[in-house]
Amino acid sequence: TIVRVLEQEEQKEQLLKGKKVLITAGPTREKIDPVRFFTNPSTGKMGFALARQAARLGADVTLISGPVKLDTPSGVERVDVTSAEDMFQAVMERYHDSDLVIKSAAVADYRPRTTYEHKMKKAPGDYAVEMERTKDILLELGERKEHQYLIGFAAETQEIESYGRKKLEKKNLDAIVINNVSDEGAGFGHDTNVSIWLTKQGDKQTFPLMSKDELATNILQKAVEEMKGESL
Amino acid sequence: TIVRVLEQEEQKEQLLKGKKVLITAGPTREKIDPVRFFTNPSTGKMGFALARQAARLGADVTLISGPVKLDTPSGVERVDVTSAEDMFQAVMERYHDSDLVIKSAAVADYRPRTTYEHKMKKAPGDYAVEMERTKDILLELGERKEHQYLIGFAAETQEIESYGRKKLEKKNLDAIVINNVSDEGAGFGHDTNVSIWLTKQGDKQTFPLMSKDELATNILQKAVEEMKGESL
Repeated sequence: TIVRVLEQEEQKEQLLKGKKVLITAGPTREKIDPVRFFTNPSTGKMGFALARQAARLGADVTLISGPVKLDTPSGVERVDVTSAEDMFQAVMERYHDSDLVIKSAAVADYRPRTTYEHKMKKAPGDYAVEMERTKDILLELGERKEHQYLIGFAAETQEIESYGRKKLEKKNLDAIVINNVSDEGAGFGHDTNVSIWLTKQGDKQTFPLMSKDELATNILQKAVEEMKGESL
Repeated sequence: TIVRVLEQEEQKEQLLKGKKVLITAGPTREKIDPVRFFTNPSTGKMGFALARQAARLGADVTLISGPVKLDTPSGVERVDVTSAEDMFQAVMERYHDSDLVIKSAAVADYRPRTTYEHKMKKAPGDYAVEMERTKDILLELGERKEHQYLIGFAAETQEIESYGRKKLEKKNLDAIVINNVSDEGAGFGHDTNVSIWLTKQGDKQTFPLMSKDELATNILQKAVEEMKGESL
């Protein structure tokens, strides 16, 4: 029985063997000028936990990360990007060859319409920053989906399940992980998350407060089950 | 002579003994909503180096820091803030009692006029973020200066000396450290800086590429010399 447990452990370790996993992480920065930018509080912890756990489960992992202060997990190929446009390019180059794609990056929705080459000098009075939409990476991934199993994240502060379900459908995802970023201990910058997992197939599960590494393992196991169901 | 060298070392260690030093560090964050904000690339390294070296020279150091990923230097009292307004309040509370004040924080000049309590949903099309000026902390410190020796920083990308000199005068500083953030290895996020030191008294010195801890020591020694000259 010890041998059997070890064999099961061995099999568990290899859940993602031979799979190419593409993960995005962190914030993006949208520059106004060389010293001013628009961003969000993502620290990249969730995406890095996913990359670390996917590598541990035997996957061939590429991690595309915005500016964060985290060490690259062992065995993971890391690509650093800054802006939403950089991230879009880096993801699209690698999408076709990926089996499982998890978009945990908090990509800016908007960027300043103009980026100034030199630092803007302060002027008296107020002003407005004209913003334009960035490309919606997750929507583009959903539209161009071939064989990939595609997972998105939603960070919401209210009506989290209904917003999350709308996003799952609108972006043609296979599954979504919804975080209530108003919850104590959840979301940006924390080591823990409280989350809801929803799938296109109708599965729903609430993950209680747990570490991002535990949540990552749960997400990957759920994804593997569903990918097997679809005989991928 | 060994005793004499040790005594000199001892004296050097105590250059700031009995002095209250107030240092600001890092960026500020100016929120649009719970998950979107404007900021800048400051990592706080310069301010933390100044705090560490001032404490080593015997000062009683308070470090007011925006959101950064750095450990508090040994023996330093740290106060964490997020926005420019928070930083203004924290600095003003402590200004009167300070002997030496070094404003190395990269405080946002502008903030969104409105901060939304809930995450804004994306809408079709572009939009503009109405911005208003934050309080100019350094200008306020210059205007309210009593006995304090006040040092500012300037991060410039062009005509750096003339912009820096204007800032020194306009803000009633005793000295300014000007960084050319376009230089290789200088400024935001780097461990090294190339800088120009200018004082109200007309002193000028260029500090070559050196670590931020070395630059911090040079700045503090210069400040002590000038403070002695003014028999403070």
